[in-house]
Amino acid sequence: MADSIPRSRDDNYSAEAIDARHEFLKERTGESVEHIRAYSLDPAVLPGNVENFIGVAQVPMGLAGPLRVNGEHAQGDFYVPMATTEGTLVASYSRGMKLCRAAGGVTTTVIDDRMQRAPVFSFDNAREARDFREWLLANVEQIAAAAETTTSSGKLLDIQTFPVSKLLYTRFNYSTGDAAGQNMTGKATFAACAWIKQNYPGPEVRFLLEGQFATDKKTSVVNMLHTRGKRVVAEITLPAALVEEQMHVSTDKLFNARMRGQLGSIMSVTNNNGNHSANGLTAMFIATGQDVANIAEASAMYGFSELLPNGDFYASVTLPALIIATYGGGTGLATQRESLELLGCYGKGKVRKLAEIMAATVLAGELSLGAAVVADEWVQAHDDLGRNRP
Amino acid sequence: MADSIPRSRDDNYSAEAIDARHEFLKERTGESVEHIRAYSLDPAVLPGNVENFIGVAQVPMGLAGPLRVNGEHAQGDFYVPMATTEGTLVASYSRGMKLCRAAGGVTTTVIDDRMQRAPVFSFDNAREARDFREWLLANVEQIAAAAETTTSSGKLLDIQTFPVSKLLYTRFNYSTGDAAGQNMTGKATFAACAWIKQNYPGPEVRFLLEGQFATDKKTSVVNMLHTRGKRVVAEITLPAALVEEQMHVSTDKLFNARMRGQLGSIMSVTNNNGNHSANGLTAMFIATGQDVANIAEASAMYGFSELLPNGDFYASVTLPALIIATYGGGTGLATQRESLELLGCYGKGKVRKLAEIMAATVLAGELSLGAAVVADEWVQAHDDLGRNRP
Amino acid sequence: MADSIPRSRDDNYSAEAIDARHEFLKERTGESVEHIRAYSLDPAVLPGNVENFIGVAQVPMGLAGPLRVNGEHAQGDFYVPMATTEGTLVASYSRGMKLCRAAGGVTTTVIDDRMQRAPVFSFDNAREARDFREWLLANVEQIAAAAETTTSSGKLLDIQTFPVSKLLYTRFNYSTGDAAGQNMTGKATFAACAWIKQNYPGPEVRFLLEGQFATDKKTSVVNMLHTRGKRVVAEITLPAALVEEQMHVSTDKLFNARMRGQLGSIMSVTNNNGNHSANGLTAMFIATGQDVANIAEASAMYGFSELLPNGDFYASVTLPALIIATYGGGTGLATQRESLELLGCYGKGKVRKLAEIMAATVLAGELSLGAAVVADEWVQAHDDLGRNRP
Amino acid sequence: MADSIPRSRDDNYSAEAIDARHEFLKERTGESVEHIRAYSLDPAVLPGNVENFIGVAQVPMGLAGPLRVNGEHAQGDFYVPMATTEGTLVASYSRGMKLCRAAGGVTTTVIDDRMQRAPVFSFDNAREARDFREWLLANVEQIAAAAETTTSSGKLLDIQTFPVSKLLYTRFNYSTGDAAGQNMTGKATFAACAWIKQNYPGPEVRFLLEGQFATDKKTSVVNMLHTRGKRVVAEITLPAALVEEQMHVSTDKLFNARMRGQLGSIMSVTNNNGNHSANGLTAMFIATGQDVANIAEASAMYGFSELLPNGDFYASVTLPALIIATYGGGTGLATQRESLELLGCYGKGKVRKLAEIMAATVLAGELSLGAAVVADEWVQAHDDLGRNRP
Repeated sequence: MADSIPRSRDDNYSAEAIDARHEFLKERTGESVEHIRAYSLDPAVLPGNVENFIGVAQVPMGLAGPLRVNGEHAQGDFYVPMATTEGTLVASYSRGMKLCRAAGGVTTTVIDDRMQRAPVFSFDNAREARDFREWLLANVEQIAAAAETTTSSGKLLDIQTFPVSKLLYTRFNYSTGDAAGQNMTGKATFAACAWIKQNYPGPEVRFLLEGQFATDKKTSVVNMLHTRGKRVVAEITLPAALVEEQMHVSTDKLFNARMRGQLGSIMSVTNNNGNHSANGLTAMFIATGQDVANIAEASAMYGFSELLPNGDFYASVTLPALIIATYGGGTGLATQRESLELLGCYGKGKVRKLAEIMAATVLAGELSLGAAVVADEWVQAHDDLGRNRP
Repeated sequence: MADSIPRSRDDNYSAEAIDARHEFLKERTGESVEHIRAYSLDPAVLPGNVENFIGVAQVPMGLAGPLRVNGEHAQGDFYVPMATTEGTLVASYSRGMKLCRAAGGVTTTVIDDRMQRAPVFSFDNAREARDFREWLLANVEQIAAAAETTTSSGKLLDIQTFPVSKLLYTRFNYSTGDAAGQNMTGKATFAACAWIKQNYPGPEVRFLLEGQFATDKKTSVVNMLHTRGKRVVAEITLPAALVEEQMHVSTDKLFNARMRGQLGSIMSVTNNNGNHSANGLTAMFIATGQDVANIAEASAMYGFSELLPNGDFYASVTLPALIIATYGGGTGLATQRESLELLGCYGKGKVRKLAEIMAATVLAGELSLGAAVVADEWVQAHDDLGRNRP
Repeated sequence: MADSIPRSRDDNYSAEAIDARHEFLKERTGESVEHIRAYSLDPAVLPGNVENFIGVAQVPMGLAGPLRVNGEHAQGDFYVPMATTEGTLVASYSRGMKLCRAAGGVTTTVIDDRMQRAPVFSFDNAREARDFREWLLANVEQIAAAAETTTSSGKLLDIQTFPVSKLLYTRFNYSTGDAAGQNMTGKATFAACAWIKQNYPGPEVRFLLEGQFATDKKTSVVNMLHTRGKRVVAEITLPAALVEEQMHVSTDKLFNARMRGQLGSIMSVTNNNGNHSANGLTAMFIATGQDVANIAEASAMYGFSELLPNGDFYASVTLPALIIATYGGGTGLATQRESLELLGCYGKGKVRKLAEIMAATVLAGELSLGAAVVADEWVQAHDDLGRNRP
Repeated sequence: MADSIPRSRDDNYSAEAIDARHEFLKERTGESVEHIRAYSLDPAVLPGNVENFIGVAQVPMGLAGPLRVNGEHAQGDFYVPMATTEGTLVASYSRGMKLCRAAGGVTTTVIDDRMQRAPVFSFDNAREARDFREWLLANVEQIAAAAETTTSSGKLLDIQTFPVSKLLYTRFNYSTGDAAGQNMTGKATFAACAWIKQNYPGPEVRFLLEGQFATDKKTSVVNMLHTRGKRVVAEITLPAALVEEQMHVSTDKLFNARMRGQLGSIMSVTNNNGNHSANGLTAMFIATGQDVANIAEASAMYGFSELLPNGDFYASVTLPALIIATYGGGTGLATQRESLELLGCYGKGKVRKLAEIMAATVLAGELSLGAAVVADEWVQAHDDLGRNRP
């Protein structure tokens, strides 16, 4: 087909292949690009990251911080690279980080960690599905052994089952080390299903490798309840006087606003009873080479705050589906790796540290925007820093 | 504070300011960066996009297509720039685009277009809130006039009200031209609320500019029901033989799998009864300078498919909250503008064209992944093209 | 068929027909019933209420109260008949009513009132559906005229539209006077659709009278957002000392518990962030001849509470889908009418009064159970009054 | 208080006590009742079912059937007593039962069975909550022993945990034999929490016995996912010709309508992608002495249907939260026991049989209404049999 984008199996990332694509593009669209091609990364590292490579998107990065984190993995002050094109964002997160630092820093805790693939099994009727479920749960050890033949670092933790009609939906839950693990769990579960198909003594096992119970790239209640990726909490107690001084609001006004915002979230039915976790997370995901599409899931959040009897304000965020990695995927690319290094988070053994920094960042952003809405400073800030041209 | 990131009001994007930040970073973290600073964009254009600028994230871009679109705004074959670090993604979307092209192309329709800000009004009791609601709905014209003093292109379309307890949640719905419009609607609604406060003859009007009924950066049922940004449909009818030939599955198997996936989505309670709209949209959002955090909302999707009596397969996706722009925000930055130009979508009057191309891309991706899962080719594809190292 | 239940078109409620059914039942099941036949109602009134009549279920009724209501329609003290078989229920609601009375009574407000039928229209593609939507919204007046030919009391208020794929889902919203109105709106909308089919100048209109956007007998977000039946608020401010004295808890403990309960509701994803509205409503629905199946919808609730600076406790409930009637349906049956008369709510013009009493009852029950859980008196109460035999 | 309803600890159900209440009611309301007092049940059995007894609601009962059930516990033809005041209901269910019988009967399967109480535990921070979770899960056996000291028939199956912020929400899942078990599980979990409080080696354990994760009397995603009460499936395959003959629709029209109804359910966000399970269940709940308020939860339903290649129609319903009993509660009351006896379901060991009959009834009702909507017979049926007076 004459309209096909030039590609080559052997040499897809060579200068010649890239040139050919740009020639082709120019011919087809009449446009030639300059900046997309002005990359410093070495395309030779790209196999596994992108096909039909033509260059890069340059996404501006700003620096927020210092963010003080009192984590189990992240400890101290961090300067957070955020890639974004939205004015005000970096400034607002920095404002929240300043507040948190003045209050002694953000305490962070990773409370769960699991990744899944979710095959659905089909039978002729509900009884067959029920019997299969019993067999499945009785044979988890052997199934795990089959799954783990495909991976050196993944472990099958357990299998959850959700029977309905003549179908059995499942979640195969894995620990995946420092990788995000979506591919690892796909491959392992495929092997597990092959073993099941071969060994189940009952009627033929028909399955789809994904029955939409892992909800990859889609937010879901089941992932928020049962964790996908890291489940991490960031918490802080803010003195009333500090909030008044830095944010120009009283803590009881802040709390009242939060109660109204939360009821709004309940009524509008969101996956997030807070303000804008997606802003901070997306900027960090782009900067650090995460799979940014996971923002659809990872931005899910449970906020929980209390107005203490002495007027101080306890605030927390829980991220139930923070899907991240510190090696593999896009983390090793040129700028992405540098961003991770700025945070001391590049490579194996760093993923919970990164999770803690991200959660602390989200909390800082919640406090900053939450206070700005109450103080009526929000529109003004965008006028000053954003591209708000009426 | 010695730990503060160097900034300057007057000259925040100068080489000196940027250098100072990198000096500071090196001192604080011990790390120096090379690639982050290797940008070709001119920082002078960045005010309004980012604060504390230190450089750029380089996100690899691949080219998918050609995508044939039979839209009202987009017509013809398009080559779609996708910025991603996930192997297989560009190849998979290209595969779906090839299928769609062979079937005559994707038909696209923008069916609604509105952006909102959602103040909540508080009173002493439910009767006051109810009376205020009546007054509000009776005075929409004057309120619109007040709102529109702040903008030359925004129009207040209507106000929706959601009374509860002693509170009145609202949605102020605007048309916003070619801008995404979040800031425009914030400013306009702030002016509207000021007018309301001054003119309401009843008890004092207390309000918060956002009551979480616009759910900015958060997916919600209310936005999926009532549209945020563009509501756009992409549809196609695929001949059974073509699906068999190109995707190696029969359409009835494809449909059965889709029914199982949909029930999984219902049970796991997602905002998306499809496969992975977030993948294609995120890659296009990064490439074209959209506010990528909006992926949290924009990835929401309603899929609807039918197995026709003759075995052909009707497939459609509806994106109810596609928040995009073709000018303003990040769209004018160096690589982002080039990406838009490759699509013929840069500047005013192009936003519905871009919406149509995005929806068509999503549909292509749904078909490609949907078929791969049924054909058991999914794990293999990731092994071949991804970084799936067990 | 020899197994058919005896029925007769002409004389279905005669003693002979009823006898014949019991003969038949005895023959088929070997069981003869005594109490089911011990009814005092006159079966002659039953056409329109039940087919194949065999007798009645006797559901025990207890009396709760006095409930003091400061409504716009209900004013004064009410003694509430509750039909239930669950020990503790009447006592618990009475306890809450006593608390509310001591605090001056419950303030109630009906804030909306509408009933719907929700046809879905199908077309060949999204553009046809979009064009039809425009025509529909431009012709609401004529459509209303067509609908209202079928009813003397129903009025079409507006039509909401929810486009997706090649389909247009709608909600036809009506005011229905003192009737609940499900049948009235069905008939009116059927007439409206016939008119639409005949008058739409575009392609053939195919419709289903119900597209599951009225969600009759099913709870839904759309009904909670947009009201089905009565939307009614009950509110009260409880002095801290009174709560401590009567409920043995401090208001701050009560509030903290409520915050935890609410977060639990958010995470478990309920249609009700309160405790047990279904208990009180079901008991009143059975007693007063409502369509009890509507409990599936009517039990939906938004609770909103505040701990005031002086320690007093503001509590409110909003019932967004209270589907009730005071004439027609089961309200005229023997015991049901008596129950309505005890409340001064029988007949036309009383439905908002009944709505207010029901909402006040719900609030009383929320406070009683909410306090019991905090005071650890809950299990004990069931031991004393319930059938809790381990 | 002079307004108090007369009650007496010792003799609350005597004729004198009942008379006194009616005297009081007459004095207060001016109304005297006749039918409410016309009961045949013996009030002496009522302690544990109702307080402040004044008589009964007489709810008309009709007979539907025969319903052929091919269950594991229910086998053969059943005549189903339904207590309702809604015309058409019994006739419509009977119509569906006739269809199912002609197709060979409904196959039913109980696929899960569990009841829960859901305490929430509060700590000072997330780490304490996380550590407690680990201890809890490591000590389930001892906790079970403590819980089971309060019950002879309940067994603690497992504990599910849902950590968030500094809180740990849990679900204590029990098997409860033939009782519904809400009170049993409350008492057992209270004992378990007392044991935990005493034995946890860490910081003080603060808990609320219910954190809204059992969602008693409220529908929720968590209960639909993880079962509350019985999880039961009813399924059938209907020959295309039979559907055409009896329901006057083709199976492909029926399936297309179902797909539209299902998408409507997804968009409106219901707990039930079917038609009206609440109708049949409520009528049976009232007739058989169930806790009718549970309809709020029990009416939740997952429908799943397939149009088979030969045109036959596979239909199934899954009820994930069917909370019922066959002894205890209201099941022993006069008419309620008779209703259960008509079904051969009174007493111990019968609860799964009743669950199967209920699920089969629901399926019959789904098919009847589903077909009526497609055949445009729905409005007419209500005109003929209901109280639809315009």
